[in-house]
Amino acid sequence: MELDERNLRCMAVGCSILGAGGGGDTSVGLLAALQAIQDFGPVTVVDLDDLPDEALVIPGGGIGAPLVSIEKLDRGDEILRLLPVVERHHGKPVSAIMAAEIGGGNGLLPVVWCARARLPLVDADGMGRAFPEVPQMTMELAGISPSPAVMTDERGNVILIEAADGRWLERLERALSIEFGGQALSTEYHMTALQARTATVRGTVTLAIKIGRAVLEAPEDPVTSLIETINATALIEGKIADVDQRVADGFVKGTVQIDGVGPAAGRSLRLDIQNENLVATQGDRVLACVPDIITVVDTHTGRAIHTERLRYGQRVTVIAFPCDPVWRTAAGLALAGPRAFGYDLEFVAVEDLHA
Amino acid sequence: MELDERNLRCMAVGCSILGAGGGGDTSVGLLAALQAIQDFGPVTVVDLDDLPDEALVIPGGGIGAPLVSIEKLDRGDEILRLLPVVERHHGKPVSAIMAAEIGGGNGLLPVVWCARARLPLVDADGMGRAFPEVPQMTMELAGISPSPAVMTDERGNVILIEAADGRWLERLERALSIEFGGQALSTEYHMTALQARTATVRGTVTLAIKIGRAVLEAPEDPVTSLIETINATALIEGKIADVDQRVADGFVKGTVQIDGVGPAAGRSLRLDIQNENLVATQGDRVLACVPDIITVVDTHTGRAIHTERLRYGQRVTVIAFPCDPVWRTAAGLALAGPRAFGYDLEFVAVEDLHA
Repeated sequence: MELDERNLRCMAVGCSILGAGGGGDTSVGLLAALQAIQDFGPVTVVDLDDLPDEALVIPGGGIGAPLVSIEKLDRGDEILRLLPVVERHHGKPVSAIMAAEIGGGNGLLPVVWCARARLPLVDADGMGRAFPEVPQMTMELAGISPSPAVMTDERGNVILIEAADGRWLERLERALSIEFGGQALSTEYHMTALQARTATVRGTVTLAIKIGRAVLEAPEDPVTSLIETINATALIEGKIADVDQRVADGFVKGTVQIDGVGPAAGRSLRLDIQNENLVATQGDRVLACVPDIITVVDTHTGRAIHTERLRYGQRVTVIAFPCDPVWRTAAGLALAGPRAFGYDLEFVAVEDLHA
Repeated sequence: MELDERNLRCMAVGCSILGAGGGGDTSVGLLAALQAIQDFGPVTVVDLDDLPDEALVIPGGGIGAPLVSIEKLDRGDEILRLLPVVERHHGKPVSAIMAAEIGGGNGLLPVVWCARARLPLVDADGMGRAFPEVPQMTMELAGISPSPAVMTDERGNVILIEAADGRWLERLERALSIEFGGQALSTEYHMTALQARTATVRGTVTLAIKIGRAVLEAPEDPVTSLIETINATALIEGKIADVDQRVADGFVKGTVQIDGVGPAAGRSLRLDIQNENLVATQGDRVLACVPDIITVVDTHTGRAIHTERLRYGQRVTVIAFPCDPVWRTAAGLALAGPRAFGYDLEFVAVEDLHA
C-alpha cells in the first residue's frame, strides 16, 4: 500500500483517535506529512512479514509536551541527521522506519522521515496508542534493548545515548527534550524485522486509516460510525466545564471536567491527564483507565480533541476502547497500568466496567 | 616523567592553587589517583612534541557542581566506557589523555583514566586554570570542534553528543550532569597532537607539581614561597566573615566576605563565585577579576581552599596571579572575561591593578 493524500487524511484522523488525547497534534503532523510526500514522493507501507529477517527496523517519534509541539515545529530533515549515527552504530543500513507510537502526530511523523529518507513505513508500532514515557513500549516488554537511542532537534544537535536501563533512558531523554525547548525527536529500541514481528503492535497504520475512513466517510453520525468500528464505549456526552492544565516536568498535566448534556444531564466526568487521558471517573467510580484508550471526540465531527486542545465549552463525547492485549498482562500493567502513573487502583477492562 | 605518589601529592596541591577555587576537590581526586597508580601502575607524562602528529589526544574531566563531587564519587572505570565510544567515532585509537582543566580535582582525574587505560598523560591542559563552563577552553579559541563529546556516569550511562556549537554543548552537558545528580564525566574537543601543540596551555602538569613542591617543601612560610613561585599578588590576609553559597543551575554560586587582620585590619574583600572565584572587590574597587586566577589559600599552610570548602572563621590569604596570555586576547576575554559572566566591568590585568 502507498500513502497518498487521501490515505494520509484518513490516517491523521485515526492516529488522533488512537492517541488517547496524546502523541502530539495531528493537524501539524498531517501538514508535514503531506508536504513530505509532495516533495519526495509517496511512502510505501510494508508488513513485517515482507521484510528480510535481518532487516534493521527503527522506531521513532517526537518526545516532549504536545502543547509545545504545536508551536515548535520540526525542520523536516532531522532523519538525515539521525540515520548516519544509527547506521554507524549498528554497522548496517536501516531498512524500514516504524512509529514508536501510532497515536497522535507521532503516528504521522515517521511518514515525513520515510519520504525524506526514501524508506518504507512498517505497518506496526510500539504501543497501539500513545503513552507519555519512552520505555512504555511493547519492545520493552519483549526485552528489546532501548539503547542506543539517538535524539536530535531542529538546530542540528545529535545525541546518542546508551542508557543503563529504560528508566534512565526516559530520564535522560526527558531532560534533553526540556533543554531543547520542550520537544525533540528520537529513535530507540532498534531491532530486526524478525524481532519486530513479535515485539510490536501490528497492523496499526492500516487500522488508523480504517478508523479515519469510518469517521470521515460516515454515512450519518460520525461518532456512531467510530464507536461501531472500534467497539468503543461512550462514557459521556457533554460539554467541557473546566480545564486545569499546565506544562510540568516536560509533560502536559492536569484535569478536565465534562458535564453531561441530553441523556447524560446531571452527570459529570473527570479526566486525569499526563499528556494522554489516563483515568476517567464519575465521583468515586472509575469509568475507564489506562492502558485502555480514553479519547475525547467532537460530538458532531467524531474527530479526537487532543489534551492540549481541550477548551471550556466544547461539545464532546468521551469514548473508551480496549488497548492491545499485551498491555493487560501483568508485565504490561506494571509498565503502563494505573499504578505506573501513581494511581492506587486496580485495572479493570473497559468492557468489564460496562458489561 | 612518571607520576608516583610523591609527584602526585605535589601535583594535587598545585592543581588546587591553579583552580581559582574550582575544578573540584583535590583531596578526593588525590585519593582516587593514588589508588589508581597503586592498582594499575604509575602514569607517564608526555610532552606534545614527543607524540606523533596524528596521535589522537582526548581532553577530559568532571562536569557539575564541585560541592556535589565531594560526596558523589566516581566508580573509577568510567574511562573504559568512554574510550570505545570515542574510538568507534574517530575510527582510530586514543594515544593520550589530557586534563580539560588543570585546576582542582579535574587536573588529577585524568591520572585515574591514564592508569586504568594504560595511556600517557599529556603535559598540558585546555585552560591553565579552571573555568565553570565547558566551552571555556583554549581549544575553543583555536577552532577545534567540541564535538563529539562523550559523557558517562557511575551507573553506566554513556552519551555521545554532536552539538550545534559550543554553547549548545554546554547547555546539553549541563542538563545531563544535573540529571545525573549534579556531577558527571565527559570528554570533548578531541584533536591530534599536531593541533594540540598550539591549541592548549602547555606544561601545566609540570607547573602544578612545581607549585605544589614550593608549598609543601617551603623552607619557611609556605604562602611566601607560593607567591614567589607564581608571581602572585596578595590581595588580603584575613578571616572569612561570611559565606553565602548555594547550588543553582548545576553550579556552586555565591559570595564570600573576608575581613582583614594584621596590616589589613579594617579592610574587607568580597569574592564573587560561580564554581570558581570570579571577581575580588574592596568596596567599589576591583582588586582582581577573571580570567586572572584568584585563589584563597590557608594563611598557615599555603594550601588552596576550594569554593565549596570555604567556611566562617577560616584564616586565609587571597592571592591573584596572571592567567595564560591567550585568555587576555579579545577572543579570550569574550569567552571567559568578566562580561562573559555578566559583570559590567573591563578586564584589567592583576599586575596592572597593583603596579
